[in-house]
Amino acid sequence: MSIDVTVQVLKENVGKIIMIKLKGDKVVKGVLNKFDQHMNLVLSDATEYKAGEQTRLGNILLKGDNIIIISPQD
Amino acid sequence: MSIDVTVQVLKENVGKIIMIKLKGDKVVKGVLNKFDQHMNLVLSDATEYKAGEQTRLGNILLKGDNIIIISPQD
Amino acid sequence: MSIDVTVQVLKENVGKIIMIKLKGDKVVKGVLNKFDQHMNLVLSDATEYKAGEQTRLGNILLKGDNIIIISPQD
Amino acid sequence: MSIDVTVQVLKENVGKIIMIKLKGDKVVKGVLNKFDQHMNLVLSDATEYKAGEQTRLGNILLKGDNIIIISPQD
Amino acid sequence: MSIDVTVQVLKENVGKIIMIKLKGDKVVKGVLNKFDQHMNLVLSDATEYKAGEQTRLGNILLKGDNIIIISPQD
Amino acid sequence: MSIDVTVQVLKENVGKIIMIKLKGDKVVKGVLNKFDQHMNLVLSDATEYKAGEQTRLGNILLKGDNIIIISPQD
Amino acid sequence: MSIDVTVQVLKENVGKIIMIKLKGDKVVKGVLNKFDQHMNLVLSDATEYKAGEQTRLGNILLKGDNIIIISPQD
Repeated sequence: MSIDVTVQVLKENVGKIIMIKLKGDKVVKGVLNKFDQHMNLVLSDATEYKAGEQTRLGNILLKGDNIIIISPQD
Repeated sequence: MSIDVTVQVLKENVGKIIMIKLKGDKVVKGVLNKFDQHMNLVLSDATEYKAGEQTRLGNILLKGDNIIIISPQD
Repeated sequence: MSIDVTVQVLKENVGKIIMIKLKGDKVVKGVLNKFDQHMNLVLSDATEYKAGEQTRLGNILLKGDNIIIISPQD
Repeated sequence: MSIDVTVQVLKENVGKIIMIKLKGDKVVKGVLNKFDQHMNLVLSDATEYKAGEQTRLGNILLKGDNIIIISPQD
Repeated sequence: MSIDVTVQVLKENVGKIIMIKLKGDKVVKGVLNKFDQHMNLVLSDATEYKAGEQTRLGNILLKGDNIIIISPQD
Repeated sequence: MSIDVTVQVLKENVGKIIMIKLKGDKVVKGVLNKFDQHMNLVLSDATEYKAGEQTRLGNILLKGDNIIIISPQD
Repeated sequence: MSIDVTVQVLKENVGKIIMIKLKGDKVVKGVLNKFDQHMNLVLSDATEYKAGEQTRLGNILLKGDNIIIISPQD
């Protein structure tokens, strides 16, 4: 068992594109810039996908407590 | 890894327009005046957008626990 | 960054009319009489607005954990 | 700012009829007999109102975490 | 103000039939055998009522965090 | 009042078939193998029932925070 | 009673395929690589199943607080 599974995965993906699945069937993709231990994420070049529509969001701060799945996109 | 990702982002945006996506498909835009470590925000010139309608709210206090995404609008 | 953003805003509005947006698309307006650090509010002359209907409630105690937005009405 | 806003309001209403608005659009009215610091309430002569129907409940224990608004009925 | 309102009410009803209203419009009736400070209840002869249907459950353990209202049935 | 009502009930049912009602109208039946103080359960021979359909799951770990009711099936 | 039921089950399944049922009727299958005490999981070769559709996700980090059931698939 390893303690900081989320920190470890996020650390490896700084500067890379990640996909985030949020509660309420929202999906966000963007470049991971920063994060903290609550899984709060700072993304650049972010786009939101919901019900077939996509919205460019640019730079965003995404609160960790709405996240279901994070998936690196390489 | 940086600890205070949310504080850092909010600090940089005091006096600037930010867009906030809330649970329940609400969006609020306004000028960020103050904030605290729970992401409670004080905004001026705030407008709410929901289901194609917009409502001017003026000065508001927005509770941090309903926030999904914060996006600076420059 | 200021610590007690919510206390500060509420303090300035004692004796004044505020609008409160609650989870579940409820809106309440009333005169703020008292509050505590959990954003529990005591209002007088309160009216509830929901789905086009309004109900006079008079004096109420409103629990802070249902609040999304507070907006002073001056 | 006063600390125990909820305790104060409940104390003043022991022995009196209060109306409680609960999550899920339930309304309960009854005589407040006892309460604790979690807003758990003991009511007598309680009636529940939901979607136009009313049900007599008699003596009840109502858990505080479902409460949105408490309104004294005098 | 009394501290342990819920414990007090439950204590008085051990061995008696109580009705429990749960989140999600479920109702359960049964004989209260045991309980703890989280309002976890052990009931015997329990029946569940939902949307006009009733299901005999017999002995059950009911988790306290889903409870809205407890009403003694005497 | 007894403190560990949930532990006590679960202890008595190790090796026996229990029915678990979960949030979201899911029902799971299976043989209780292990449990912890958060009501996390390890079941063998588990089957899930939802909306008239049943799915064999075999061995499962069921998280305690989704549980509403546990009922021994003897 | 055993304390770390979830850790124990997850430990036994590192390197194996597990099925995870999430809130909101999502199902994810994948190979368990790592986990922590909050049931945060790192999976490889993950696929999501929802409403008859399946989406390949590859490597993912899955947050523990959305999990209902984990079932080893051997």
